[in-house]
Amino acid sequence: MIYLDNAASTPVHTKVIEEMMPFFKEQYGNPSSIHKYGRFANLAIQNARKRIANLIGADSDEILLTSGGTESNNTALYGIASQENGKHIITSSIEHDAILEPCKHLEREGYQVSYLPVDKYGLIDPEDLKKELSHDTCFVTIMFANNEVGTIQHIKEIARITQEKNIPFHTDAVQAVGKIPIDVRETEVDMLSISSHKINGPKGVGALYIRNGVKISPLILGGGQESGLRSGTENVASIVGFGVACKLAKDHMEDNVAHYKKLTSKLVTRILNEISGTTLNGHIEKRIPNNTHFTFLGVSGEDLIIKLDENKIAASTGSACSVRVQKASHVLRAMGFSHEQITGSLRLTVGITNSEEEIDRTVDVLKQVVQELRSVSPYKSKYNF
Amino acid sequence: MIYLDNAASTPVHTKVIEEMMPFFKEQYGNPSSIHKYGRFANLAIQNARKRIANLIGADSDEILLTSGGTESNNTALYGIASQENGKHIITSSIEHDAILEPCKHLEREGYQVSYLPVDKYGLIDPEDLKKELSHDTCFVTIMFANNEVGTIQHIKEIARITQEKNIPFHTDAVQAVGKIPIDVRETEVDMLSISSHKINGPKGVGALYIRNGVKISPLILGGGQESGLRSGTENVASIVGFGVACKLAKDHMEDNVAHYKKLTSKLVTRILNEISGTTLNGHIEKRIPNNTHFTFLGVSGEDLIIKLDENKIAASTGSACSVRVQKASHVLRAMGFSHEQITGSLRLTVGITNSEEEIDRTVDVLKQVVQELRSVSPYKSKYNF
Repeated sequence: MIYLDNAASTPVHTKVIEEMMPFFKEQYGNPSSIHKYGRFANLAIQNARKRIANLIGADSDEILLTSGGTESNNTALYGIASQENGKHIITSSIEHDAILEPCKHLEREGYQVSYLPVDKYGLIDPEDLKKELSHDTCFVTIMFANNEVGTIQHIKEIARITQEKNIPFHTDAVQAVGKIPIDVRETEVDMLSISSHKINGPKGVGALYIRNGVKISPLILGGGQESGLRSGTENVASIVGFGVACKLAKDHMEDNVAHYKKLTSKLVTRILNEISGTTLNGHIEKRIPNNTHFTFLGVSGEDLIIKLDENKIAASTGSACSVRVQKASHVLRAMGFSHEQITGSLRLTVGITNSEEEIDRTVDVLKQVVQELRSVSPYKSKYNF
Repeated sequence: MIYLDNAASTPVHTKVIEEMMPFFKEQYGNPSSIHKYGRFANLAIQNARKRIANLIGADSDEILLTSGGTESNNTALYGIASQENGKHIITSSIEHDAILEPCKHLEREGYQVSYLPVDKYGLIDPEDLKKELSHDTCFVTIMFANNEVGTIQHIKEIARITQEKNIPFHTDAVQAVGKIPIDVRETEVDMLSISSHKINGPKGVGALYIRNGVKISPLILGGGQESGLRSGTENVASIVGFGVACKLAKDHMEDNVAHYKKLTSKLVTRILNEISGTTLNGHIEKRIPNNTHFTFLGVSGEDLIIKLDENKIAASTGSACSVRVQKASHVLRAMGFSHEQITGSLRLTVGITNSEEEIDRTVDVLKQVVQELRSVSPYKSKYNF
């Protein structure tokens, strides 16, 4: 199989598995226990926390460990909303459901939510943000990079605007962390969500960066782990693995980015040159290096994925999380795409394990499959395929 | 090291690790993806869900997967409270903090919480529950077995009482599941929390049994996983491991219980016979078979643990989760223990990997260590040690 769905999830790095193993087999203590097993587990968490912090230029004590990106987002949004500094929230129209659904919940609770529009590249205009800010705005949450089209927002500028007004700014950076260098001291965000399984770590673990001084209320209460901000016995092995994944992402950032760019550049060039009626969606430059997202006119993305799957290639139409409900991409809709353009979309996201041969094979298969599907397309005559 | 803190956490079973491994290395797909990787991951979750359900006699679709026992408890309590069927909650005075802290939060939100007292064995009187029930009671939550002294409540009777009044009944069964046979059809609870890492599964995963027909609101929103009740990419490898742990617990229940009883019986008999001024706390019969909990008069439990640790024995004073705050056990206080009795307490909880030799070695060390500590105890003259 050729796996080109690295935005949905990634293989766990061998070194990550290696460092996790002792925490299943021998070092299975509860980090809260005061005996040797407990102390060892606790130290391992502190070490992992440093590595996670280091990937984004944060301090260890600014890292809150969670069960994943979704919990990080929920914790950030509910945690800051409950500080009662206002009843108005600003977000974008292209956020992941892990942001949009909590926002809708807060709307039901009496909050007013502004959904900023995006241009055809998926970019927010910081001027729009300025206009929406009010004395009642309690936080702003704008994703770092989009999970479907990979567009990177003007995060630094957004952070500067919110900082001037002294309004907390959260960013869902699940797709950006590990793919581009991020330094929270430089971008000056207040909160930032990370997921382990998007960067070759295990699933079921993530983090929320919370700048020192920013106050939030906990989502999950109990034994008081994570300084009282996230109770529950720590997921030691996975946290350790997450730490290793962060260290690897940091250490190999340059090489990985070069590798991603080589592969996506080949994908884009060959597909646009060799398959007519095809467009690359998202921003040409301001995009995460491992993302490509295309529209093939006259083709159903779903059919494409099934055909690719038959040819042992794993791809996606967009967000894995919205497959369940089979709804049309709200991201592409917000970018002004027609129903037909949305239907014909395909996301190919590369990872550290992919090779140039895999990319060539994928394009070869795609050419054939797109042709097959177009030959029976209801749009056949419209486009003269 | 001799590990006698299995109530805090347990070693992950070799078979559990074996079945988890492919989901790190090869089957790393996102279960929401429609390609082969995704479908395989999704099937693995459904299979694990069956195994988890099977351990407690539930149906697969009654199992909500969570990040652990604490999240299960929070989900149950907030999820049922938000159904707005009343503003009164009944719980016990000896619950885990993962119940007590959400209850306190709900109190701050305007709910009234009744904390039922317990007798000297840690047992609730079901008559007390009857008296507290009112038209405003929106749910009852009483733990199945206590995490410190191991006392098992009259769960079936409590369920019968709440059922008569049509009030949802949740039980935190984190310490009971896998240690005693539990059948939710027989006990007739409405919701039941389980933790994987207490039954030789990995940390960071758990479940909430929700009887068909019982409605709750989700705690974590996003992509709509778990039928919309718990969003976030599923922790596939850990869920698979949790499933194996449940299957093993079910298949080996009888042998494991016999093994636990042999070890705890030896522990209790030898300690009570060979160390004077010692009592076994909790109920003699209604207790989970792997738990022992003692008070050694004139000794500090904390000192005991440190001395045992020096002798390569891992033990606990009570709940691992309350070590952080070093507060005196609210469980023992509710059972009517004096400060001195509470201070001198030690919990030894056995697991599948412990041997009789380890138990003998532990008692030998304990005898010596208790004597040492008593020789310098401030209570030396009081008890004439």
